[in-house]
Amino acid sequence: LKLQEIAERLGCRLEGDGALEIAGVAGIEDARAGDLTFLADSKYRPFLATTAASAVIVADGAACNGARAALLRSDHPALSFARAVGLLAPAMPPPRGVDRTSSIAPDARLGADVSIGPLVTVGAGAAIGARTIVYPNVVVGPGSQVGEDCVIHSHVSIREAVQIGNRVVLQDGAVVGSDGFGFVKQPDGTHLKIPQRATVVIEDDVEIGANTAIDRPAVGETRIGAGTKVDNLVQIGHGVKVGRRALFAAQVGVAGSTVIEDDVVLAGQVGVAGHVRVGRGVVASGQAGLTTSVEAGEFVSGCPAIPNRDWLKSSSVFRQLPELKKRVADLEQRLRELEAKLAE
Amino acid sequence: LKLQEIAERLGCRLEGDGALEIAGVAGIEDARAGDLTFLADSKYRPFLATTAASAVIVADGAACNGARAALLRSDHPALSFARAVGLLAPAMPPPRGVDRTSSIAPDARLGADVSIGPLVTVGAGAAIGARTIVYPNVVVGPGSQVGEDCVIHSHVSIREAVQIGNRVVLQDGAVVGSDGFGFVKQPDGTHLKIPQRATVVIEDDVEIGANTAIDRPAVGETRIGAGTKVDNLVQIGHGVKVGRRALFAAQVGVAGSTVIEDDVVLAGQVGVAGHVRVGRGVVASGQAGLTTSVEAGEFVSGCPAIPNRDWLKSSSVFRQLPELKKRVADLEQRLRELEAKLAE
Amino acid sequence: LKLQEIAERLGCRLEGDGALEIAGVAGIEDARAGDLTFLADSKYRPFLATTAASAVIVADGAACNGARAALLRSDHPALSFARAVGLLAPAMPPPRGVDRTSSIAPDARLGADVSIGPLVTVGAGAAIGARTIVYPNVVVGPGSQVGEDCVIHSHVSIREAVQIGNRVVLQDGAVVGSDGFGFVKQPDGTHLKIPQRATVVIEDDVEIGANTAIDRPAVGETRIGAGTKVDNLVQIGHGVKVGRRALFAAQVGVAGSTVIEDDVVLAGQVGVAGHVRVGRGVVASGQAGLTTSVEAGEFVSGCPAIPNRDWLKSSSVFRQLPELKKRVADLEQRLRELEAKLAE
Repeated sequence: LKLQEIAERLGCRLEGDGALEIAGVAGIEDARAGDLTFLADSKYRPFLATTAASAVIVADGAACNGARAALLRSDHPALSFARAVGLLAPAMPPPRGVDRTSSIAPDARLGADVSIGPLVTVGAGAAIGARTIVYPNVVVGPGSQVGEDCVIHSHVSIREAVQIGNRVVLQDGAVVGSDGFGFVKQPDGTHLKIPQRATVVIEDDVEIGANTAIDRPAVGETRIGAGTKVDNLVQIGHGVKVGRRALFAAQVGVAGSTVIEDDVVLAGQVGVAGHVRVGRGVVASGQAGLTTSVEAGEFVSGCPAIPNRDWLKSSSVFRQLPELKKRVADLEQRLRELEAKLAE
Repeated sequence: LKLQEIAERLGCRLEGDGALEIAGVAGIEDARAGDLTFLADSKYRPFLATTAASAVIVADGAACNGARAALLRSDHPALSFARAVGLLAPAMPPPRGVDRTSSIAPDARLGADVSIGPLVTVGAGAAIGARTIVYPNVVVGPGSQVGEDCVIHSHVSIREAVQIGNRVVLQDGAVVGSDGFGFVKQPDGTHLKIPQRATVVIEDDVEIGANTAIDRPAVGETRIGAGTKVDNLVQIGHGVKVGRRALFAAQVGVAGSTVIEDDVVLAGQVGVAGHVRVGRGVVASGQAGLTTSVEAGEFVSGCPAIPNRDWLKSSSVFRQLPELKKRVADLEQRLRELEAKLAE
Repeated sequence: LKLQEIAERLGCRLEGDGALEIAGVAGIEDARAGDLTFLADSKYRPFLATTAASAVIVADGAACNGARAALLRSDHPALSFARAVGLLAPAMPPPRGVDRTSSIAPDARLGADVSIGPLVTVGAGAAIGARTIVYPNVVVGPGSQVGEDCVIHSHVSIREAVQIGNRVVLQDGAVVGSDGFGFVKQPDGTHLKIPQRATVVIEDDVEIGANTAIDRPAVGETRIGAGTKVDNLVQIGHGVKVGRRALFAAQVGVAGSTVIEDDVVLAGQVGVAGHVRVGRGVVASGQAGLTTSVEAGEFVSGCPAIPNRDWLKSSSVFRQLPELKKRVADLEQRLRELEAKLAE
């Protein structure tokens, strides 16, 4: 593609030679001639002078002294770059139609232009919406509904009677609708399974990461709100309600019946206790342990989680604890001496 | 079902109209007319007056003033509710028999009334017990034994020569018998794999969560004791021995050769070091890191794990560390002044 | 096998009866007559006198007073034992050839003597090297390259256009090449997916654990260096570069764009932030949270991670924080009294 055409398609203002041929996209440090890259962050600015890229997407007002590449000015460079990747590194969609090695129940309903790969199982009464792509070895349980324009990667398990919206992406090995961890302790100490027979609802535009597990509850539902993005190896317990546009990084765990409101951001390995509420827009830093409910808008860290500012300060003192203890012992010694002297 | 019949089947004492038709089960906040619910916890008591449920399972002696629904009195309400779910929200078992798209070794032994779904692989010499349900795309390795009345969900990997008891439930994507993480550092710094050729034993009535991994050792065995329940995304290292009736919440990790005795409860994201012993009935709170052996009956928290009581108190002081440090500095200043004054 | 022959094959010096018949390998505590075992650690030395094993691999110079078994002297007992396991507990490799239930693209290239199990999918243009074993229900995406002598266990997802070296082992359910967690926040608060179209490179002699996920980036590559071993349920974010001979224990998480240099050891449940560098030979203890870059050779612990020595000392004071706080309050009280007395 010519740079001029890319600029037009991305809605960017071009500074430089629009006739340049662009073959690919790359990071600013790795880019070679023919690549388009972008300035992700001001700390990468020094690379503007050294990158071998043919063109760089930069912010509208950014000073770009020393840049040798052509520039594409954008009011949202990251957004423009996301679009450029889609333009220059096209997907490899599988062929339309249903592979003959798949096992599709006779009463399953398949929308127009679906793509069902080899060795897929679709259970009785299940439905797959138009244009949805189902990669090899996926299992869609009986009675489940998958919306339109979804992408379901290999080895995904969609269990029975689960509802999945439109434009949902499920990465490889994700499980939607496994049994919640619900047991009752019996008088003899053994655990009786509470049958987990209710459903999971995944709303529109959700993405679920590889090998993530989302449990179904005994009653009610587990729900992931529209536009929420969940990374790999995340655990969502039974009966959890997640709001819209939340972001859960990898290995996050949310225990049963907890409510996570809209726009919450949980960094990697965060754990959230069961039966609590995490207010709108809360941010939790990596490995935080949210043992109780958190008010909207808070930024928390540590386990048990406290405000991030406090945690940073306390963590810095934590390192000095042996010294602090010594200082206290020293004070005690000197005070004892003083008291003795005064007692004389 | 009529409420009268449900009361009889659950062994509950009915207070109210036994002729009521009950169509489903629900949580006390979400229940609608026609639903049966239960009072899980005294903190939900206020909902007794407002729930739209037609009937509520409550404890024998519980005061239920203001309840508008019929009551089912039980000496163990949670247990009665678990049974009610099984009664009112029946499972959708797959058809009996072996799906024609499955790949079953000629010498595999299948018990009476098994249900083997589409695209399942059963290896040479493997055996599946009577009435066991194997969902689509499961792999049972050569020489493995699966007991009677088990439920093996989609995408489970049962590796070669693994032994699985009766009434075992394996959720989707669980792996039983993957190679333990056993390597020997060679003089040149590279890691030589120790072949992991021994077995995993899963005793009766165990449940294993979605995408959980249980490793096999080089020698000896990895064993999960009868009645133990393991949640999703848990790691059980090679040579680990877990006792009976233990509960491991999601994302727990137990490193190799560790012994976990009966009735231990590990909350979410707990980590246990290798080669240690966790005594009978130990409870560890979420994200605890058990770096050494723990005596029977202890309740531990934090990393390194300490008694929960101490951890709660120390965590509360942790928040105040910057202030505490300031108080120490203030003491030092005042003491210096006092010492100077006295020296005059 | 006769002990004499085992000694020769392992390159060990025999002390005892070479005519002994050895049937298996076992741990020193569990071994029975006919077993070969090894002395892993001096703390197991007491078992030398009590083990029922017929032979024990011990270090060249080790004192073995009281040992009743024959001895195999080795300059590296663990290495010799690893080889003994391979000798005495042979693998059960699947048959050569391609199972007729597999779905192999017509233009896929399969090397000599490959073994492709039932219900495997190999996409268009993919290549599998000579002697590689692919277990049932694996998916190899279009355009991916798998090297020679690899072992790919069941339910592995190798996504499109991924490169995998020689002698690589992928345990069950591992995912290589899932989409990185890359989104751009749009002005309306929704998250736009950055297409993740670049590749993952797994170099020679790497092992990847069960249900581990390795993401692909939008541009550039994710790379796992030669000889690195990754345990189960690990998350490797998009654009991460891992060096050679690193060891990652189970449930480790490494966020996007981070660089891990050669010979790094991350214990279980360690988390590493994105965009940082972990220097050569760094060791992090279990559950450590590496929030910033770490210099080569450091041994770190805690979250935020600090030198292990400091962490051990500070953690020991942490337990005493309530007492330390009381001592400070006591000092304040006594100082106040002293000040008052002097003011008189």
